[in-house]
Amino acid sequence: MNEHTLKFFGEELERLKAEIARMGGLVEAQLADAVAAVAKRDVRLAQQVIERDRKLDILQSEIEREAVRMIALRQPVAQDLRRTVGALKLSLALERAGDYAKNIAKRALVIAESDPITPMTRSIDRMGRLVGTRLKQSLDAYAAADLDRARQIWAADQEVDEHYESLFRELLTYMMSDPRTIQAAAHLLFVAKNLERIGDYATTVSEILYHEVTGDELEGERPKGSGA
Amino acid sequence: MNEHTLKFFGEELERLKAEIARMGGLVEAQLADAVAAVAKRDVRLAQQVIERDRKLDILQSEIEREAVRMIALRQPVAQDLRRTVGALKLSLALERAGDYAKNIAKRALVIAESDPITPMTRSIDRMGRLVGTRLKQSLDAYAAADLDRARQIWAADQEVDEHYESLFRELLTYMMSDPRTIQAAAHLLFVAKNLERIGDYATTVSEILYHEVTGDELEGERPKGSGA
Repeated sequence: MNEHTLKFFGEELERLKAEIARMGGLVEAQLADAVAAVAKRDVRLAQQVIERDRKLDILQSEIEREAVRMIALRQPVAQDLRRTVGALKLSLALERAGDYAKNIAKRALVIAESDPITPMTRSIDRMGRLVGTRLKQSLDAYAAADLDRARQIWAADQEVDEHYESLFRELLTYMMSDPRTIQAAAHLLFVAKNLERIGDYATTVSEILYHEVTGDELEGERPKGSGA
Repeated sequence: MNEHTLKFFGEELERLKAEIARMGGLVEAQLADAVAAVAKRDVRLAQQVIERDRKLDILQSEIEREAVRMIALRQPVAQDLRRTVGALKLSLALERAGDYAKNIAKRALVIAESDPITPMTRSIDRMGRLVGTRLKQSLDAYAAADLDRARQIWAADQEVDEHYESLFRELLTYMMSDPRTIQAAAHLLFVAKNLERIGDYATTVSEILYHEVTGDELEGERPKGSGA
């Protein structure tokens, strides 16, 4: 790239990152509201989350179009190319994380119709906050291109997994001791799983950043693979 | 593109589509084996599926690298650009569909340790075959760039959803009538959900093809959104 193109490209990349940040903020809000809708049995809030998901789809399309245009027009190489492709992949990851938040909101609608399992919704609320924090931290690390932070978040994925495993066992215990809780608990099982997957996307954000900056893959240190 | 570049690009695109077809074939095999591992309580087969998933990750990286290289080097426009980006997105979708197959295989390991719920594993097996057929048909439609076929597959997504809903209710009934089945049934709930998601990816294949060919989105006719 000549100096002129380089300047354009740098500005375009900044704009792309700003769009990613906007998209990330929206996913954080969707997650927090979806979990609140479950915990507070708030049907209206759940419906808002479901409707708002469309915005994420639109933002994703825009980022994709812009990233592809930049690759074709500016022909970036090395780190510039990785950063542009990284933004595209991140937009797809955030869209999917948003889909899981939407799915939690849909389940909130069903859960609100059953008798409350209060201790369980409290556990879900706690896990939701943990995942929300991880997502925020990983997006902050991405925005600041902070590799150390990204690596820390990536290595600490275990905490979310342990939370999920413990919720899974707790929910099964409820189901066994009181069959009337089975339907609501089954939906809460999926809520917990969706939270775990959103947590995986926090990990994905770190992996994308690491690859953008170094050209290598983050591997070998993480306790376990997620495998969907 | 001049005539020379056009020829190169055409050949490269053919190779990319061949790689996608290979990846698709592997996902179909992973799905079939994962479901067989659940139905036959075959721990060894489940482990093979889990190990083989790595191949999909490698294929995905290769397709992504090649697609990005083509965009930067050949600067395709209009349908050529959409087809290249489509191949990239399809590789990501197939990798995720493969992740769900791997997750089914992981659950097969746990399910094999519980008492069999034979009628349920038969239902899972049936749903697995339905999803496998849909995936195969959508990949065939993609390879042949057959829009009519793609639209049909897309509109028939309901069948998989209905299968899932009925399995969900069936599993809950088992759990309620015999608490000893709760743990295995909870894992089967997730197996059924994973199958539904793989079915969603068959729909995604059709959507990607439609967009590649027409530049528009398939929408308005599909009975319901999946929302993760």
